[in-house]
Amino acid sequence: MTAAADIHPKTVRGVTRIARNAKAAAARLATTSTAEKDAALQAIADGLRESSARIVKANEADLAAGVENGMSESLLDRLRLDEARIAAIADSVEQVIDIPDPVGTTVLGRTLPNGIRLTQSRVPMGVIGAIYEARPNVTVDIAILALKAGNATILRGGSAAEHSNAELVAVLRRAVESVRLPADTINTIDQYGREGASVLMNSRDYVDLLIPRGGADLINAVVQDSIVPVIETGIGNVHMFIDSSATVKNAVDLVLNSKTQRPSVCNSLETLLVHEKAAKRVLPKILERLEAAGVVVHADADVAALAPESMRIRRVSRRDWAKEYLDLELAVKLVSGIDEAIEHIRAYTSGHTEVIVTKDIDNAETFVTAIDAAAVGVNVSTRFTDGGEFGFGAEVGISTQKLHARGPMGVEQLTTTKWIMQGNGQIRD
Amino acid sequence: MTAAADIHPKTVRGVTRIARNAKAAAARLATTSTAEKDAALQAIADGLRESSARIVKANEADLAAGVENGMSESLLDRLRLDEARIAAIADSVEQVIDIPDPVGTTVLGRTLPNGIRLTQSRVPMGVIGAIYEARPNVTVDIAILALKAGNATILRGGSAAEHSNAELVAVLRRAVESVRLPADTINTIDQYGREGASVLMNSRDYVDLLIPRGGADLINAVVQDSIVPVIETGIGNVHMFIDSSATVKNAVDLVLNSKTQRPSVCNSLETLLVHEKAAKRVLPKILERLEAAGVVVHADADVAALAPESMRIRRVSRRDWAKEYLDLELAVKLVSGIDEAIEHIRAYTSGHTEVIVTKDIDNAETFVTAIDAAAVGVNVSTRFTDGGEFGFGAEVGISTQKLHARGPMGVEQLTTTKWIMQGNGQIRD
Repeated sequence: MTAAADIHPKTVRGVTRIARNAKAAAARLATTSTAEKDAALQAIADGLRESSARIVKANEADLAAGVENGMSESLLDRLRLDEARIAAIADSVEQVIDIPDPVGTTVLGRTLPNGIRLTQSRVPMGVIGAIYEARPNVTVDIAILALKAGNATILRGGSAAEHSNAELVAVLRRAVESVRLPADTINTIDQYGREGASVLMNSRDYVDLLIPRGGADLINAVVQDSIVPVIETGIGNVHMFIDSSATVKNAVDLVLNSKTQRPSVCNSLETLLVHEKAAKRVLPKILERLEAAGVVVHADADVAALAPESMRIRRVSRRDWAKEYLDLELAVKLVSGIDEAIEHIRAYTSGHTEVIVTKDIDNAETFVTAIDAAAVGVNVSTRFTDGGEFGFGAEVGISTQKLHARGPMGVEQLTTTKWIMQGNGQIRD
Repeated sequence: MTAAADIHPKTVRGVTRIARNAKAAAARLATTSTAEKDAALQAIADGLRESSARIVKANEADLAAGVENGMSESLLDRLRLDEARIAAIADSVEQVIDIPDPVGTTVLGRTLPNGIRLTQSRVPMGVIGAIYEARPNVTVDIAILALKAGNATILRGGSAAEHSNAELVAVLRRAVESVRLPADTINTIDQYGREGASVLMNSRDYVDLLIPRGGADLINAVVQDSIVPVIETGIGNVHMFIDSSATVKNAVDLVLNSKTQRPSVCNSLETLLVHEKAAKRVLPKILERLEAAGVVVHADADVAALAPESMRIRRVSRRDWAKEYLDLELAVKLVSGIDEAIEHIRAYTSGHTEVIVTKDIDNAETFVTAIDAAAVGVNVSTRFTDGGEFGFGAEVGISTQKLHARGPMGVEQLTTTKWIMQGNGQIRD
């Protein structure tokens, strides 16, 4: 962390002012109706469509800088905003209008023996900070989901997307203002750079929750440095265990879908554990299909012996077991049974998603009970750990920690609760 | 924080070994039935009664050291364990047996359109650390509530209670072992002193949650230094606003009960705000009763003018508004109306409990909506924000933060959830 003492006083003052204003906006949002929030979301969708050309232009400046700095084609693709992508973002904003507003719902209610009516009511979190990398769509994503739940946001995107983010935040602020909500509902501190992020991580008086979105390095840095409460998201060292009783069809389908359907995301498969008694039956077919899909396999000789002759298996190392490839690569290991599978997963899990493929009801139960992760699956693709698939409408990320929200985080996970005690003069004996 | 580099390697190794063993115990506890956990709790209650004499003897050593170090009588009283108090602690352990086990309950369940059965199931948190001051009853409190929820604990009590805590933890570990659960379910790191606490705060790989219990300094230090997720508990700068429509009886009863029923606890009243239009009607009686109860009042001349002649009002300063007296002291302020009351509370609230006394339904609604705190009351004593009063059976503390648990934390708040996906080969398109 940049020690507070080293940060320019202008940065401290600037970010603190933004955070204080965001807190004031959050107080206003706490009493804003669903209809008003939805009107703001509609204004945002409209504003994005109307300002599409300006956003594309700002994005072109970022892309040009990216090319100049030798950014890879896949990173440039993540950074790119064209008319079609902006239209898709505007559509996604309108979809958030359809998500039910969690604010004001009663979580629990009872009348106490003394007559006090006790209600646990869902309320906005307040001010949500987000620190993320160069994907400008995240700017809109987080701002609109937070707004639906009645929260103000302070955004810190990657510097590689600074022109895009500045333009997007300007569009969002104008839209929010056009329906008479405070512009300070949505804020960026990109102009204050890395030091601004340090100030944000220390703004415990104003910021209620900080969400880092990005790679492991970014997330670990925020966890280390932030005194604002953090929710870790998105690190998925995901395992699948093929039990001896698994059918070939299930094993092949689930491995292939889990690894190749979208390898760059956190719920894709990274390590495959195969019961040694199932290996001869299932692995040749799995490896053949993985090869055809262009997947690089890391494994020992016992696995390599079951691969097609044409397939080159890379020697697996301890490092592979801990690695989130996020690419067409897979570590494969034979295990002596479910106990070794559980032991391996316990040693290397990131607590995201772990799946067993089995026909044995006892092993399914053992696996589900023994594995400590946000999501544990039986005979399903790992790709189902997803807010959209779970029916949340949209997601802010997948929490891999145990506090507050575990697994996909939708709009409801951006709220907290308040206990309301209504009485008529009750005192305590 | 003591920088990791300055900590003796023996301390790092020792605390890390304890944390690793606690995590292994937690894995065992995750598959432990309610009956087994309740048997352990019964063994703990029995063990406390049987070892009463030894615990008293260990406590006497702490008391003697306390006297030698000039500890105040009220602190010595908090530290003291006699046969009667140990019997009361044993009884409280048996009461925890009666609290329903939250583990295994379904929070949410649905079948997705693709046929996957999705269940959000309550599971133990894992390993819970606690850092607290010289109240040895906290050692038992936290260990048993955590155990009921299937968690292992790592305890760091105040050094002034080290002999008492060592004996208590020894009794608890023997009891847990006697029912064939791992002794490492309950651990102390008191032997490693302050540096041990620093290692604990950095043990993110093994510890899932850290609860500081004590004064503001202790809590702030843990929040600053810990990279393990923390839940802040127990800072209560509690306000009550007497609206112009409040009845004299409600105003007097509620202020007196809130301030004097147990002034040393976090839900007792610290600042009274009175609508200037109600002042003449309610304040003379309130001040008379406060004087009779021995309460020192801090206020301006406008309040002093309404006090009995015999009463000495201390001049209030800005510092008083922010202060948690935890004693028979109260700050009093006249406000022009509900808006000023809300503004004052927003500026000084610790987010614990805030109460309005009113007969006006609109003002009640405005207050409840606008105030951002764990508990907001209408016409009730502030003293009701309490796990026991809320029907939780027992409480670990009152959370004043918004993540995970807000307000009284009982056994359920020491759990997390796991998503279970059960399918028959579903893949994602």
